[in-house]
Amino acid sequence: MPLPLFLIVVLLGSPPSPAPPVAAARAHVAAHGPAIVRSLAELLEIPCVADDLEGTTRTARWIARAFAGRGAEMNVVGRDGVPPLVVGRLDATEAPESARTLGVYVHYDGQPVDPTEWTFGPWTPTLTTKALEAGGVARPLPEDGEPIDPEARLYARASGDDKAPLVALLAAIDALEAAGLPRRSNLVFLFEGEEEAGSPHLGDYLDDPRVRPWLDADLWLICDGPCHQSRRPQLVFGVRGITGFELTVYGASRHLHSGHYGNWAPNPGHRLARLLASMKDDDGRVLVDGFLDGVLPPGEAVARAAATIPPFEDALRAELGLKESEAGDAPYLERMLLPSLNVRGLKSATVGRTARNVIPTTATASIDVRLVKGQDPAAVRERIRRHVEERGYLVLDRDPTDAERLAHARIAKMTGAGGYRAVQTSLDHPQAEWLIETTRLAAGDDLVLMPILGGSLPLWLFEEKLGVPLVIVPIANHDDNQHAPDENLRLGNLWYGVELMAAIAATR
Amino acid sequence: MPLPLFLIVVLLGSPPSPAPPVAAARAHVAAHGPAIVRSLAELLEIPCVADDLEGTTRTARWIARAFAGRGAEMNVVGRDGVPPLVVGRLDATEAPESARTLGVYVHYDGQPVDPTEWTFGPWTPTLTTKALEAGGVARPLPEDGEPIDPEARLYARASGDDKAPLVALLAAIDALEAAGLPRRSNLVFLFEGEEEAGSPHLGDYLDDPRVRPWLDADLWLICDGPCHQSRRPQLVFGVRGITGFELTVYGASRHLHSGHYGNWAPNPGHRLARLLASMKDDDGRVLVDGFLDGVLPPGEAVARAAATIPPFEDALRAELGLKESEAGDAPYLERMLLPSLNVRGLKSATVGRTARNVIPTTATASIDVRLVKGQDPAAVRERIRRHVEERGYLVLDRDPTDAERLAHARIAKMTGAGGYRAVQTSLDHPQAEWLIETTRLAAGDDLVLMPILGGSLPLWLFEEKLGVPLVIVPIANHDDNQHAPDENLRLGNLWYGVELMAAIAATR
Repeated sequence: MPLPLFLIVVLLGSPPSPAPPVAAARAHVAAHGPAIVRSLAELLEIPCVADDLEGTTRTARWIARAFAGRGAEMNVVGRDGVPPLVVGRLDATEAPESARTLGVYVHYDGQPVDPTEWTFGPWTPTLTTKALEAGGVARPLPEDGEPIDPEARLYARASGDDKAPLVALLAAIDALEAAGLPRRSNLVFLFEGEEEAGSPHLGDYLDDPRVRPWLDADLWLICDGPCHQSRRPQLVFGVRGITGFELTVYGASRHLHSGHYGNWAPNPGHRLARLLASMKDDDGRVLVDGFLDGVLPPGEAVARAAATIPPFEDALRAELGLKESEAGDAPYLERMLLPSLNVRGLKSATVGRTARNVIPTTATASIDVRLVKGQDPAAVRERIRRHVEERGYLVLDRDPTDAERLAHARIAKMTGAGGYRAVQTSLDHPQAEWLIETTRLAAGDDLVLMPILGGSLPLWLFEEKLGVPLVIVPIANHDDNQHAPDENLRLGNLWYGVELMAAIAATR
Repeated sequence: MPLPLFLIVVLLGSPPSPAPPVAAARAHVAAHGPAIVRSLAELLEIPCVADDLEGTTRTARWIARAFAGRGAEMNVVGRDGVPPLVVGRLDATEAPESARTLGVYVHYDGQPVDPTEWTFGPWTPTLTTKALEAGGVARPLPEDGEPIDPEARLYARASGDDKAPLVALLAAIDALEAAGLPRRSNLVFLFEGEEEAGSPHLGDYLDDPRVRPWLDADLWLICDGPCHQSRRPQLVFGVRGITGFELTVYGASRHLHSGHYGNWAPNPGHRLARLLASMKDDDGRVLVDGFLDGVLPPGEAVARAAATIPPFEDALRAELGLKESEAGDAPYLERMLLPSLNVRGLKSATVGRTARNVIPTTATASIDVRLVKGQDPAAVRERIRRHVEERGYLVLDRDPTDAERLAHARIAKMTGAGGYRAVQTSLDHPQAEWLIETTRLAAGDDLVLMPILGGSLPLWLFEEKLGVPLVIVPIANHDDNQHAPDENLRLGNLWYGVELMAAIAATR
């Protein structure tokens, strides 16, 4: 009898002698893969958008029951009208008192859905032979003993983002148990139900005496996000922070006829253009004085990590229709390790068919700033405010009064507050080094070490409230349509998750 | 019996011994003012928006009949589905073969109306005691012999813009006739019914053999527009031309997440800002190479004219909420005598509540350029195109293809065509000098000589088709709400028109 296809793939794609926990995970998947898939499908049937209190509560209870069934101590903590937080603890089976304690963060809520945009419906988990874009078709959930192609996909909201790690961890615990391997790490759990809504209550939850005592750990694993675009597994050691503002420049107090006043009355669009031009040069270098204050150059470990990232920039430029990227095709990672100043929108009167011959009264730019370690959101906004002031502007946080208009030739309004800091864990932190080594047990030499994500996540809350290093540990496929209709999880990625979690739980 | 109020005003506000034609006009207004007002009201009752063929045709026939009744040879020339053109000729009563021939241009159509926005309805001519904003109230049309306050206003569409000069000219002819004064100028008439629609058929009409032979003249009087904002009469010797374009700068071929790509993918808003900034400095000086090619410095006559313009810039800045105007408060006239480069609109993605954290795919500026004498619209656009090219851009007149995107790091689209040249009559042209002197007979030393209007009118058609000098000769009050609801004519301005037309017709 020929080998099942998934076994051929696993055998070809992996080192000849996997570490014992990884071997245990593979054996467990080989024997119980269909049950694991059906279990994930059961969890995915429960609606879990953050504004659905009933659905998120059912989801939280399913999760708590599943972990409690593996011997974990679990607690579902509620707050009025808000999805509950699930916390828990599962001690190592070997020397728990001296074992490393790992925090495992997963969010169990999914992005909002418009069911009409989905091929199968967001809460009707459907297995397909492969990705729909690749011609996959729906097939029944697998029966016990049935081989499963790792290219098969399970379609449902939250399949990749972010319920998969929960089921992977449950299967990993089962796999170690079945193989008689000890768990050598203590695990503490923090499962959130409002991440896709911006985690509005996570800070309060973390301060809650019903929650905080559960959360002492040596290292937090943020189990979220997708694998690398090259399909290779990755660890991500940080995220950029973010802040932003809107900048409005004023002309006359009413729209003026561009004939009768053009060349006489100041043009706010042109003034705004000159301000924006003064903030960044043609090479993408930000010119705001002090913008980089506090930013440290990337170290040796970052350079080593960079070498693990497969080349992708040429392909990405081609895909995006770009002959060149900023700063003379500087490496992507180098650019992500620097803060950005991005004009996300411009508006002054109108263009196109509705444009009229006016000198507009105002021109506005909407700008977001991605921050790196060492930068404070408010301090960066203040630097930019000073930059505008140094160009002769009175900078207000509201529209000018008539008196202010007559007293100041140049007036700008700058609004915007908040944002949050970047979080970056040094790649040579001992806990980070342990995680890299342990993850390689499952990922092999393919592992991509990504020093920072360009995007922003509010991980500073962890740093502030829990004070530990953290690393993002993704398992989902990069093409999982997260945040879009037809979200899906590639089963090969789920199996990688089981192997990874088994390695993490079993390695001292 | 006390003098009627209007006579007191006329006597106080004018030189002690008016020239004979002006005296004749005053006497005629004193005796027949009410009939003149009723005649204008009759004309204003006829709807005359350019898209109303029936109304404009009735208006044209009313006008032709009225002038024919004064001995003019008139011709109403039609074209399919288009308001007719009225042409005509009224020879001097004294030595017509050696008399100066003056072309008189008036447009008899009015701006489109929304009747619900009007106090009395656009086609219900209503006399008020003074301006509505000043507390004026409606009153009956005057009876013969009734005194008329020059501050009274006649409300109706096209009252100021532009039927008033027609009735003023008719009354002036009557006034000279009644006083037994000869007409010493030949008059040829060109009355148009599509000016407010952009004169789409005027060029064809001027080429029409039924029209062109009527239009030989030594000087054209463009009887349109309002008097100076200071309420003083004015002559205007030119208008700026206009052209424009839209400039779009491209980023990646799809919107990108500003976190994952910010600082790596080029930002079109920022690139557009740098392009616009490169086109004009902080003082309002246009930096496009060759932009001023062909523009001559204003001469001695312009400097003398400038001295007739009452100071108004400080008041205007205060009214508009501006501490400073462009180029360090340079005089308004100086700025109007230069071409402008005005950002009339900006757009890239969105700002405000709908702004998203993206790197937009495009950023667009809509720009209008006001031209002065010596500049050709297409040549100016070409200079600007080259300016963009010199900054490394491939400049297209359409969106780039995928291949172009990959071959060029910087791509811009520049669309826009057409526009028209400025027209300026030299203030020391002999015909202009004659007109200035003659106008002073009615206007006195108050006369403002305005070398150029900032706004644009397609007067280049006259220059191109008729090849003569032209001067704009306004009579309407500056606050006549032209192009707005509640358009009105101040009767004092109508009387000024009668005096001015009498002086023009009677002066050799």
